[in-house]
Amino acid sequence: MYTRRRRAAAPDRLSAIFGALADPTRRAMLERLRTGVCSVTELAGPFRMAQPTISRHLKVLERAGLVVRGRNAQWRPRALKAAPLREANVYLERFRALWDDRLDRMELYLKELQADQ
Amino acid sequence: MYTRRRRAAAPDRLSAIFGALADPTRRAMLERLRTGVCSVTELAGPFRMAQPTISRHLKVLERAGLVVRGRNAQWRPRALKAAPLREANVYLERFRALWDDRLDRMELYLKELQADQ
Repeated sequence: MYTRRRRAAAPDRLSAIFGALADPTRRAMLERLRTGVCSVTELAGPFRMAQPTISRHLKVLERAGLVVRGRNAQWRPRALKAAPLREANVYLERFRALWDDRLDRMELYLKELQADQ
Repeated sequence: MYTRRRRAAAPDRLSAIFGALADPTRRAMLERLRTGVCSVTELAGPFRMAQPTISRHLKVLERAGLVVRGRNAQWRPRALKAAPLREANVYLERFRALWDDRLDRMELYLKELQADQ
């Protein structure tokens, strides 16, 4: 049932995906890419960050499989790949029963309160 | 539309949640807690890790609001809180259209291939 911790050198796929999502700049980049492909310059636009910082964030997203490079060598377009987000969601869905159950119970409790009044 | 990167000292909530999920040991702990409350010793059981390492992982989960401490001072039970997982799910759901759309197109393509044969 338990997975032994792996070496830092080879992070597992889910850890890479969640790790990539654990940063507001990277989430903002995904948000931008949700509307379509764009160049690195366009992606960097709204951030007051040095180019190496932008590149580092992009590399984390690429390693997680969330961002891919287009073929055009001139403007090197980046595109979003949604499959890893789906994987992350499949993981979370396994806990859905827990939060749904608690919401159901809270709703029931509120209804009982209202009925009492 | 873009969120400026915040200081490392005050990570935003979503980053804390995704960061906590970005580790196989912490995910295994959540998995164990999914079946009910348990003591730190029970949680540490399957891992070949030093107690400080276990504590550090637990602290990350607690800071993300995923794990709470029970009141019993003797065995200090830990419990899972599902609400942050729901928040992460809400975030990911905003991308659902993208992966659903691609799956739909793939299915359509496969059907066309089969029809051609």
